[in-house]
Amino acid sequence: MSILIKNVNVITMNKNKDIIEDGVVVVEDNLIVDVGDRSLISKYLDSEIIDGEDGILIPGMVNAHTHASMVVFRSLGDDVSDRLQKYIFPLEKNLVDKQLVYAGAKYAVAEMLLGGVTTFADMYYFEDEVAKAVQEAGMRAVLGETVVNFPAPDSNEPYGGLEYSKWFVEKWKESELITPAIAPHAPYTNSEESLKKVLEISEKYDVPILMHVAEMKYEFEEYVKKYDMTPTAYLDSIGMLNKRLIGAHFIHVTDEDLKILKMREVGISHNVGANSKGGKGTAPAVEMYKYGLKIGLGTDGAMSGNTLDIMTQMALVGKVHKLVNEDRTLFPASEILEMATMGGARALSMDAEIGSIEIGKKADLVIVETKSINMQPVYDYYSVLVYSANPSNVDTVMVNGKILVKNKSIKSLDMSDVTYQLREIKEKIQNFNV
Amino acid sequence: MSILIKNVNVITMNKNKDIIEDGVVVVEDNLIVDVGDRSLISKYLDSEIIDGEDGILIPGMVNAHTHASMVVFRSLGDDVSDRLQKYIFPLEKNLVDKQLVYAGAKYAVAEMLLGGVTTFADMYYFEDEVAKAVQEAGMRAVLGETVVNFPAPDSNEPYGGLEYSKWFVEKWKESELITPAIAPHAPYTNSEESLKKVLEISEKYDVPILMHVAEMKYEFEEYVKKYDMTPTAYLDSIGMLNKRLIGAHFIHVTDEDLKILKMREVGISHNVGANSKGGKGTAPAVEMYKYGLKIGLGTDGAMSGNTLDIMTQMALVGKVHKLVNEDRTLFPASEILEMATMGGARALSMDAEIGSIEIGKKADLVIVETKSINMQPVYDYYSVLVYSANPSNVDTVMVNGKILVKNKSIKSLDMSDVTYQLREIKEKIQNFNV
Repeated sequence: MSILIKNVNVITMNKNKDIIEDGVVVVEDNLIVDVGDRSLISKYLDSEIIDGEDGILIPGMVNAHTHASMVVFRSLGDDVSDRLQKYIFPLEKNLVDKQLVYAGAKYAVAEMLLGGVTTFADMYYFEDEVAKAVQEAGMRAVLGETVVNFPAPDSNEPYGGLEYSKWFVEKWKESELITPAIAPHAPYTNSEESLKKVLEISEKYDVPILMHVAEMKYEFEEYVKKYDMTPTAYLDSIGMLNKRLIGAHFIHVTDEDLKILKMREVGISHNVGANSKGGKGTAPAVEMYKYGLKIGLGTDGAMSGNTLDIMTQMALVGKVHKLVNEDRTLFPASEILEMATMGGARALSMDAEIGSIEIGKKADLVIVETKSINMQPVYDYYSVLVYSANPSNVDTVMVNGKILVKNKSIKSLDMSDVTYQLREIKEKIQNFNV
Repeated sequence: MSILIKNVNVITMNKNKDIIEDGVVVVEDNLIVDVGDRSLISKYLDSEIIDGEDGILIPGMVNAHTHASMVVFRSLGDDVSDRLQKYIFPLEKNLVDKQLVYAGAKYAVAEMLLGGVTTFADMYYFEDEVAKAVQEAGMRAVLGETVVNFPAPDSNEPYGGLEYSKWFVEKWKESELITPAIAPHAPYTNSEESLKKVLEISEKYDVPILMHVAEMKYEFEEYVKKYDMTPTAYLDSIGMLNKRLIGAHFIHVTDEDLKILKMREVGISHNVGANSKGGKGTAPAVEMYKYGLKIGLGTDGAMSGNTLDIMTQMALVGKVHKLVNEDRTLFPASEILEMATMGGARALSMDAEIGSIEIGKKADLVIVETKSINMQPVYDYYSVLVYSANPSNVDTVMVNGKILVKNKSIKSLDMSDVTYQLREIKEKIQNFNV
């Protein structure tokens, strides 16, 4: 049976950025089969009806970079210097196991769905546990096991993630909603040899590579000193840059780097909130957008960015880049919503399937209600979505044709169990001294 | 009868920044009469009980600068250049009347209360209408009529706000919750003569002055060129800087200016969201905080900052200043919550009455629930409040001992009427072409 969504203002994010006020979208199985005005209602009289109550219908948002399970550590170590070495790595070394990854991922998946995120890209340890949580929830995701030059939670040996990845990719390769990937942590935590092995696996199985690139100032300086190349140019020199790579951050990049990223069709996750809060600087997103790079938005893990929704990131994109460039006309709200939807889809090379509301695309849809006090008046849908909305305004979320959130509640997970598991893990973490 | 709030984690914001987990606060009439742990419960058995359900109890937040009624224009003119002259002034000239100001203020007051703001400072036209809305809602506010060098909605003559202010101040001088003020728009929209008249009124009635200062780059350049003084130094030279002045913005200030602001005990509203989005730059809040200036947070009007809650500003303070200074250790979350509460109270010279949870202070209190998905886990209350929370997490709000928001709903206003009025005004605005 088809589902007909009516009484919504449809922000299509198609090429013309068409908006259909009082529009209708029809879904059959997992696909969008019709998009138009209310005259469509009489064509689909047998459909199940969803009444959007004058809300705003947008394509599901894409979180192009996160570490979902790290939500268990949220609110720890904020404002601390050199947090990665002093805080995150020790915590992970001692506490991260399969159970933590599974429970954390379930909680994070629920939070993302409730915030209107329908697809995310994740890199962590025991990614198979993340995949299980994603599958249970019915979400869409690109998941990559971390490869790193020291013993990690998933392996007593450096680079244990390489073997794990082969197994993981083979296990999930045929999944409808999960795209397995491989995730070298960063250039500075991987040898050239390990990166070449990553490349082999990626090519052999035709799966994406997820990687932190050009995030740290010391990384940039080290590469320039050691190789007389930027981290981006270095990665290109060893063949790592291609359309399968989705790089997170790209803060420290030159104009020449941007040209390379364009030529190699690299996907980019711009993590404006986490990067700002980390005092790391900000990617030159204005230039990236102008060059037509494949740029989406990411939250990073909740220990860096604290929340896992993309709405909060949208407001920040406008504020941060207008501020840094001292120009209030930069990044009109429609471009920001594009980064959150089609941009993310492009970065993950999924733009043929998701990212816009068009006939033939997968039915990943979000209704944002306009009844809450912060959502009125509505003169400009884009502006309201980017600057007024927060994740609590997400009312209904559909992924692949299935309704996962309705009336602001998760339908596909038992939330009392999800929060109970989180509480148990929190107690363990509280008893551990970094 | 007293009210006893239990089962809350009390963030006192007193001098020691004491936190009382599983704490109790007792309110009698409009005052906080006791603060402690749960052993207090047996002392106040006759009290009405509010069960905070493991939420976080904080002092009511202070919005130190807004134009409440401008919420009717929210989502208009975002991303447009030179918006003040091309957009705001024409809109105001043609559309702003008493009815719009009253209805807009009521809507804005409801939004602020629902977001945990218990006190705000406002400058606009027909401020008597704002006062009526504030009084009906039971909120606390400092309200100043705008004085400006051109005919404004409230007067066919330039500087009509001067006469209005005398009448307005006399009318509201004895109000318990409303502090009338006078609000010269900015140095560059007021003559020296008019500013001296403002000063006279402020001194005669002992009322605050609200003013935009050092917001615009052109303002700074003009004053340096014309007077060989910064706008701040110019205002000091004509006697405008004193502890009655609450200046909004102070973006373009020198180190010397900061010393003057300290010496004159000027209140400052730091409007980080609106200033970022406007591409205007950001006040040197790190230095202001270090100098011990009286600095609070403001949203500015909803045409500039879009939302009227202070929680959204808190997250931005951290992100923007850590980014701009490339230092993740700056502005720990506890300092940011201080700016949102005690800092705002100091800026408005109300710190003897509000801003912290201490015996003898006015009972302006907010319970932030910790059940929503974005609010867990809680390892650090400050971090959760600043980086995880959004206004939808505010559950209960008390002003001057009265419960105005309970279970996330406004008790003191008829919200169906408030939203109906907004819709009517929206139609008028939509039919007007700028």
